[in-house]
Amino acid sequence: MRESLQSILKAVEEGKMTSREAHDELKGYENLGYARVDSARSKRKGFPEVVYGGGKTAEQLVEITATIMKDGRSVLATRISEEKAARVQAFHNEITYDPVSRLLYYRQGDVVSTGRRVGVLCAGTSDLRVAEEAAVTADVMGNEVHRIYDVGVAGLHRLLDALPEIDACDVLIVVAGMEGALPSVVGGLAPQPLIAVPTSVGYGANMEGLATLLGMLNSCSSGITVVNIDNGFGAAYSATLMNRIGWRENGR
Amino acid sequence: MRESLQSILKAVEEGKMTSREAHDELKGYENLGYARVDSARSKRKGFPEVVYGGGKTAEQLVEITATIMKDGRSVLATRISEEKAARVQAFHNEITYDPVSRLLYYRQGDVVSTGRRVGVLCAGTSDLRVAEEAAVTADVMGNEVHRIYDVGVAGLHRLLDALPEIDACDVLIVVAGMEGALPSVVGGLAPQPLIAVPTSVGYGANMEGLATLLGMLNSCSSGITVVNIDNGFGAAYSATLMNRIGWRENGR
Amino acid sequence: MRESLQSILKAVEEGKMTSREAHDELKGYENLGYARVDSARSKRKGFPEVVYGGGKTAEQLVEITATIMKDGRSVLATRISEEKAARVQAFHNEITYDPVSRLLYYRQGDVVSTGRRVGVLCAGTSDLRVAEEAAVTADVMGNEVHRIYDVGVAGLHRLLDALPEIDACDVLIVVAGMEGALPSVVGGLAPQPLIAVPTSVGYGANMEGLATLLGMLNSCSSGITVVNIDNGFGAAYSATLMNRIGWRENGR
Amino acid sequence: MRESLQSILKAVEEGKMTSREAHDELKGYENLGYARVDSARSKRKGFPEVVYGGGKTAEQLVEITATIMKDGRSVLATRISEEKAARVQAFHNEITYDPVSRLLYYRQGDVVSTGRRVGVLCAGTSDLRVAEEAAVTADVMGNEVHRIYDVGVAGLHRLLDALPEIDACDVLIVVAGMEGALPSVVGGLAPQPLIAVPTSVGYGANMEGLATLLGMLNSCSSGITVVNIDNGFGAAYSATLMNRIGWRENGR
Amino acid sequence: MRESLQSILKAVEEGKMTSREAHDELKGYENLGYARVDSARSKRKGFPEVVYGGGKTAEQLVEITATIMKDGRSVLATRISEEKAARVQAFHNEITYDPVSRLLYYRQGDVVSTGRRVGVLCAGTSDLRVAEEAAVTADVMGNEVHRIYDVGVAGLHRLLDALPEIDACDVLIVVAGMEGALPSVVGGLAPQPLIAVPTSVGYGANMEGLATLLGMLNSCSSGITVVNIDNGFGAAYSATLMNRIGWRENGR
Amino acid sequence: MRESLQSILKAVEEGKMTSREAHDELKGYENLGYARVDSARSKRKGFPEVVYGGGKTAEQLVEITATIMKDGRSVLATRISEEKAARVQAFHNEITYDPVSRLLYYRQGDVVSTGRRVGVLCAGTSDLRVAEEAAVTADVMGNEVHRIYDVGVAGLHRLLDALPEIDACDVLIVVAGMEGALPSVVGGLAPQPLIAVPTSVGYGANMEGLATLLGMLNSCSSGITVVNIDNGFGAAYSATLMNRIGWRENGR
Amino acid sequence: MRESLQSILKAVEEGKMTSREAHDELKGYENLGYARVDSARSKRKGFPEVVYGGGKTAEQLVEITATIMKDGRSVLATRISEEKAARVQAFHNEITYDPVSRLLYYRQGDVVSTGRRVGVLCAGTSDLRVAEEAAVTADVMGNEVHRIYDVGVAGLHRLLDALPEIDACDVLIVVAGMEGALPSVVGGLAPQPLIAVPTSVGYGANMEGLATLLGMLNSCSSGITVVNIDNGFGAAYSATLMNRIGWRENGR
Amino acid sequence: MRESLQSILKAVEEGKMTSREAHDELKGYENLGYARVDSARSKRKGFPEVVYGGGKTAEQLVEITATIMKDGRSVLATRISEEKAARVQAFHNEITYDPVSRLLYYRQGDVVSTGRRVGVLCAGTSDLRVAEEAAVTADVMGNEVHRIYDVGVAGLHRLLDALPEIDACDVLIVVAGMEGALPSVVGGLAPQPLIAVPTSVGYGANMEGLATLLGMLNSCSSGITVVNIDNGFGAAYSATLMNRIGWRENGR
Repeated sequence: MRESLQSILKAVEEGKMTSREAHDELKGYENLGYARVDSARSKRKGFPEVVYGGGKTAEQLVEITATIMKDGRSVLATRISEEKAARVQAFHNEITYDPVSRLLYYRQGDVVSTGRRVGVLCAGTSDLRVAEEAAVTADVMGNEVHRIYDVGVAGLHRLLDALPEIDACDVLIVVAGMEGALPSVVGGLAPQPLIAVPTSVGYGANMEGLATLLGMLNSCSSGITVVNIDNGFGAAYSATLMNRIGWRENGR
Repeated sequence: MRESLQSILKAVEEGKMTSREAHDELKGYENLGYARVDSARSKRKGFPEVVYGGGKTAEQLVEITATIMKDGRSVLATRISEEKAARVQAFHNEITYDPVSRLLYYRQGDVVSTGRRVGVLCAGTSDLRVAEEAAVTADVMGNEVHRIYDVGVAGLHRLLDALPEIDACDVLIVVAGMEGALPSVVGGLAPQPLIAVPTSVGYGANMEGLATLLGMLNSCSSGITVVNIDNGFGAAYSATLMNRIGWRENGR
Repeated sequence: MRESLQSILKAVEEGKMTSREAHDELKGYENLGYARVDSARSKRKGFPEVVYGGGKTAEQLVEITATIMKDGRSVLATRISEEKAARVQAFHNEITYDPVSRLLYYRQGDVVSTGRRVGVLCAGTSDLRVAEEAAVTADVMGNEVHRIYDVGVAGLHRLLDALPEIDACDVLIVVAGMEGALPSVVGGLAPQPLIAVPTSVGYGANMEGLATLLGMLNSCSSGITVVNIDNGFGAAYSATLMNRIGWRENGR
Repeated sequence: MRESLQSILKAVEEGKMTSREAHDELKGYENLGYARVDSARSKRKGFPEVVYGGGKTAEQLVEITATIMKDGRSVLATRISEEKAARVQAFHNEITYDPVSRLLYYRQGDVVSTGRRVGVLCAGTSDLRVAEEAAVTADVMGNEVHRIYDVGVAGLHRLLDALPEIDACDVLIVVAGMEGALPSVVGGLAPQPLIAVPTSVGYGANMEGLATLLGMLNSCSSGITVVNIDNGFGAAYSATLMNRIGWRENGR
Repeated sequence: MRESLQSILKAVEEGKMTSREAHDELKGYENLGYARVDSARSKRKGFPEVVYGGGKTAEQLVEITATIMKDGRSVLATRISEEKAARVQAFHNEITYDPVSRLLYYRQGDVVSTGRRVGVLCAGTSDLRVAEEAAVTADVMGNEVHRIYDVGVAGLHRLLDALPEIDACDVLIVVAGMEGALPSVVGGLAPQPLIAVPTSVGYGANMEGLATLLGMLNSCSSGITVVNIDNGFGAAYSATLMNRIGWRENGR
Repeated sequence: MRESLQSILKAVEEGKMTSREAHDELKGYENLGYARVDSARSKRKGFPEVVYGGGKTAEQLVEITATIMKDGRSVLATRISEEKAARVQAFHNEITYDPVSRLLYYRQGDVVSTGRRVGVLCAGTSDLRVAEEAAVTADVMGNEVHRIYDVGVAGLHRLLDALPEIDACDVLIVVAGMEGALPSVVGGLAPQPLIAVPTSVGYGANMEGLATLLGMLNSCSSGITVVNIDNGFGAAYSATLMNRIGWRENGR
Repeated sequence: MRESLQSILKAVEEGKMTSREAHDELKGYENLGYARVDSARSKRKGFPEVVYGGGKTAEQLVEITATIMKDGRSVLATRISEEKAARVQAFHNEITYDPVSRLLYYRQGDVVSTGRRVGVLCAGTSDLRVAEEAAVTADVMGNEVHRIYDVGVAGLHRLLDALPEIDACDVLIVVAGMEGALPSVVGGLAPQPLIAVPTSVGYGANMEGLATLLGMLNSCSSGITVVNIDNGFGAAYSATLMNRIGWRENGR
Repeated sequence: MRESLQSILKAVEEGKMTSREAHDELKGYENLGYARVDSARSKRKGFPEVVYGGGKTAEQLVEITATIMKDGRSVLATRISEEKAARVQAFHNEITYDPVSRLLYYRQGDVVSTGRRVGVLCAGTSDLRVAEEAAVTADVMGNEVHRIYDVGVAGLHRLLDALPEIDACDVLIVVAGMEGALPSVVGGLAPQPLIAVPTSVGYGANMEGLATLLGMLNSCSSGITVVNIDNGFGAAYSATLMNRIGWRENGR
């Protein structure tokens, strides 16, 4: 659908394409009944459909990943429990599972490197799972990844000390729980686009990350955008799209 | 009531006090019908009853302040509109009104200086009204006050530059709106007790200060306590009680 | 502060810089008492401090903008009422005011063009004020801006028809109220980074944009990040930072 | 009670009915102590009382279903765990249990077909349980059912491709989690009444379906009504009532 | 777009349609810059685009309504203040304005009667504005309308007395504020599809209709679907789509 | 309807009542089109229908009160603005208006005294409007009323001093804003049924009385029930019903 | 403390009481370290301290109940798990445990019958646990109890049929989950004071009873007061206090 | 960083410090990869970094505590499960674990006594875990601790009886669940700074402590500040900072 309707209609009119071909061009998915795997996703977004593991059975995951992989496309599945991962790996032994980030992935030749670097910062050790979901995703999607962990604002010198490392990144992903102040402080110091990821680390009035999310949305620093609570994957996906900016200029 | 019931009962039993005197000792208020002015507040809390102006008529304010002042006690009234202030001042021309903090006050000889200093910090110019409510209250209640304004985390060097000034305070009041990150950063650097005051400065997901309040309650820095949104008065009142700690040791 | 502490310390040690110069280098602000104007913001973030107009008086705005402009820096102030704008313009007649976006701005030579294009989409005519805040900000900050308005999902063909225009942008800002479904649909079709801006357009269970915000944060499409309700300015600021990615590679 | 009070009173007055019979006519339930099974439900609503399984013991379910079935009425019970289902089936082996939708049902001759078709769409594979609750209920209540699954807006072509199938339905039930954008898009394209069912599929700011629900209630498309989160049953019940519209015209 | 893509592609291939015609067929809107008026809405949904008045200027309303009316299509605009209405009527004097429902409308020959009846019930006199928005919309869209007002559950006999009138309707719209119990009671008695409309009538814990909305979504009666708070228009729109069910069977 | 259906049916059967009379007996309201005034309310509840003034026009209020008064029934209308009150009094000059409680009332001979006393306590002067709504309602409905105002827990001795007065009441209504602690303290000391009324007095995290309401619902003292925020009327209505307990025993 | 301070002071002054006795009179509790059992509760409230079981260990429950029982006072403990109950019964075998209501109780001679009747209604079978907590508590506290279960508004005739039974009660407790409409309907029909108890029965937008609670607080029927979600105990406690009204008149 | 930047720069300039030393002075942490242990915390805050146990593995806890202890610094870790505690104690057998407060601690010579007293009050036995977290923390951090438990307002005499004990404290920590009224009552009587700690003890509308928290933030008593739900540790930390006020005056 990214190619405008007009050009496809034109091609049909000029006999360069049959209506069947036009239809297939626009169709772009495989129907498994309970799932329609989006085979055109790569063409539209530059990366194959990513599988959201929440609420899917191991059987469904096996079949969906097989459908994606069979044409040489890379697989990335999020929020996969250790048990489900084991069952998928029993069928597809080339797939890697990372128990910290709970990601299941297999990178094939279809992923082009962005040639740029994503910095992943987190405020505390308890935010590690989410930070790793961001870092591993960014890596699988073709970015160089730099991890800067446990630099929360309660010990500000740890962060200031990391400024040279931060400086070397093209996009920043800043992961924090509790009051989520870290993105505001980093955003006041760094000139890169910054994606803030609230985590559900906290208790009481934190309300499983809601307070953190609200804090980040209200940041007094400019240049900050926000994703859903614990959505390390989404932050890395957006960071990748940012790191592809200018490809066209450079003839990619 | 602060003197234990037992000592009063003892005094009655020993004939040192009549039951009538005991009752009056415990009564400690003047009944205006719509209001019972707490004349024993000074004895219990070290400062006369403070008048909450919200929802009171000018006529009520005139009578209540007169009741407080007539025995040489100081007056402090919060959330007073300019119009109501003018009507109270028409009756009591010695009372001062400050339109920024919306405080109405008249300090008499009953207020003892704490001999200590309160630092009032705010994140942005828009937080000024609340910061001034804290600063003026702290001053009226007998503290030395030091103002450090517009030191929000988006320009961190402004705050770091103020560290020597901050160092010279005994208690810190930190006022901020939006995501409210300033208390976390100050709390990571300074060893004093810190009272965080969320303001209703912000929009959208700030929900009139609720996001700020939640952020402050979830701070990852230790040594921070929080008051209600826009409650500069309450912060200064608590700071004053803190600055009185140790009076007894020093024989006051 | 962006230059690491170490290099400044080194310079002092080697006698290339006095401690006074080092301090001034780190200080970087002008203290007006009620405000500390961050003169180092341009150096850190590539654009001078933007003034948040909410809660500031006209007098404060006049003085703050004067402070920013005097060194040849550009001014951008948000959420300015027509009345305040008139009072600022009385002092600084070179400043432009746009009543739709409520922005006050004056662009000087310090703003470098990004050389890239921001697409601003909105779902309905009622979202215009926020869309214009984004579009005008993006323009002032040095981007080419393309407006694609009233392409809400209730008439999907309007959006599909605009796909070629969308295709020509480097970053997308998608503004919508009510259920906020537009970013999900655009994000499913377009490969650019997409910043979703919820607006407070709606009623009842919309809760002044909160439902819209929540919808965007939960989008099933990847590559979407979100800013606060009605924060067109923030979206454009982030889009500008994204459009500067790769400057270093190209020697800028 | 559907027959107006007046006609029953009239019948009593005219001696066509005793006061006892009138009372029984109006009574219409069987009292089990802990439950009063509504035997008049069929007459009023065209389908027997449906049993809400949440919070009922297996023993209660056995007795209640027996009470419903004994007069030749169909049984439908929702939210039944596998364990409770097994215990009910031990007593009533003609009852079917579907573990995906968690429905327990037994259709007898009292259900009249609507002669019309319900389309059940869902956005993703994770929404299957709720979609099946709707589909099975619609089937048990006498509708032809057409399932169109995994057509979420992130891959819009999957939905557009299904338009001919959608076109053949009389009422649409659209099930979605996360931001719940699917009903808005379908509602912009299809002329049938559309019942939107939010699911609790999502995480973080989804708040177990609350964000989805709010999104659907604020849809910019017209012709959409909404039911409670995960309430596939309720959507199918309403769809059935819609599909009976016009029966009277046709003499049913 | 309702005609499947395939049939249009086929027509192009067979030379029955040029690619230009196919494009125009799919385009179906007029671009006013700030608005794209959806001229294909009638074909897709059976009624022209309805104008949401909130946040639109009188000038925009004049131009948008003119665009809709010029091809003989009916106009319906919601949430129009008296002042804006007067300015639109100055240009289009054939348009009617109803100050109770705040609807602006002009019915032309393109609206086909449904031949069926909508019953509009409301719980109290304070709900009148919303009930009338539903009733007038249902009338403009071609339904027979029956109003049954002030039948709240605090005086149940008023409702029971109206049962024969209720019985004569094909679809019910039930409008209520406060706790919103009326739909549950009506839904327990009546066999028609019931659309519940919460109103913002109430105070305190009603939270401007939120409590009412929640109550209706949780109704223990089956056959109820819900629309947004105060959305009388949306209820009537859905009721109209329901009343068109079966048209195809009858050859319409 | 309070007389059981059976006894009315019996009377019809025995010829003691015609079906018409039975119907009228059950009907019990007057239909003004926009309102159905419940003339049977007195018989069911022991007091005529009370008019909720919110959202009603002055014209509607004039007609509704006339309908109630014409048969010698008392009138009570709540939430009436001064302006509307003046317009109603222009028609019915015997009606009293109280601007503090915003009640409009006229007591006729149909109200029987309960012979018991309601104590109305409030925490602060700002709660006066709500406390007076309770006190005046209780008086109009036939209770002796005792007012005990400004006895908030910040000056506990004021409350303890009022214990003998509290002791002389049969039912207690306790009105408070802010944190709403007063009912808990009174409920710990007094043996009467206690109705807690939260007010919207407060700011910030009070959320217009929501925090107060929640506090009262969670009271650690037993014997407390709660009404909606600012609902002084409802508390007094319930207190009256409580004060009628035992009438039957005493042959009333 | 219920005897006014003055009378005790008087007695001390007149030598009728020593200061020690006066102190003991006012003290009225036994200090177990982790708990101060309130032995004066009976005198103040007419029933001994009720033990809230949530968060207490079995060991603490054993010791606390022993402390209450040793002076011939009755025990009532709420929210006791089966396991904890067994451990308490091992020590005090005269205590009864009811697994449905999760109450642990032992009634001694100190409880005086109210001589009046409490009606406990519930909307559905799933509300049974809460209804039984109310019914058993009311029984233990000396009321006659009448249970009327499963009379929810979806089958209104079940409720109307029970009106004669309802009529025979002095106070009504109405328990309901989901939208909680039952109290509104009963409150429109019955003249007794009505205590509404929301339950956490429901799902999705019910938010564990919050929607139910809000519905009940906003009831359009008068004479209804509300307690916390699932608080059957609190409703029965208040009902008991109501049923004691008038004791004094009758010389009790 | 507490020593102002200027003095360090001066020292470097004067050759009293190398740039390397200056850097190390500012660095002050040990990088474990997943954690940067803040070794400068003691110098800034007067107590070593406290470990938040939530979300950390036993392995991480072992290594982090070892890092803190190795230089003679005291360890305090919060929210440690019994299982994790056992694994840490296996490595560091000198560490104490308290299962009630879930604190893990080891006090070394670096903690200086404040020489003052903290009073810890709690409302009920169910609040014990949080009260103990406060009490043990205050003890470990060098305060004398006085526990006053189960003095909730439902039995006010228990509290009044404890007034002499309360009087002997320098700072008060008041722990309560449910409606959280205790701080308001204590704050009305006592002149010390009071830190209110809401607990998650309660049910239904308590929303796991949120209602309690809101109540405390809205207290009508002055001199109260609040911490997060169940944050006994944070209250004690702040109390300690308060108890150090005046150290400088006394030459400490």
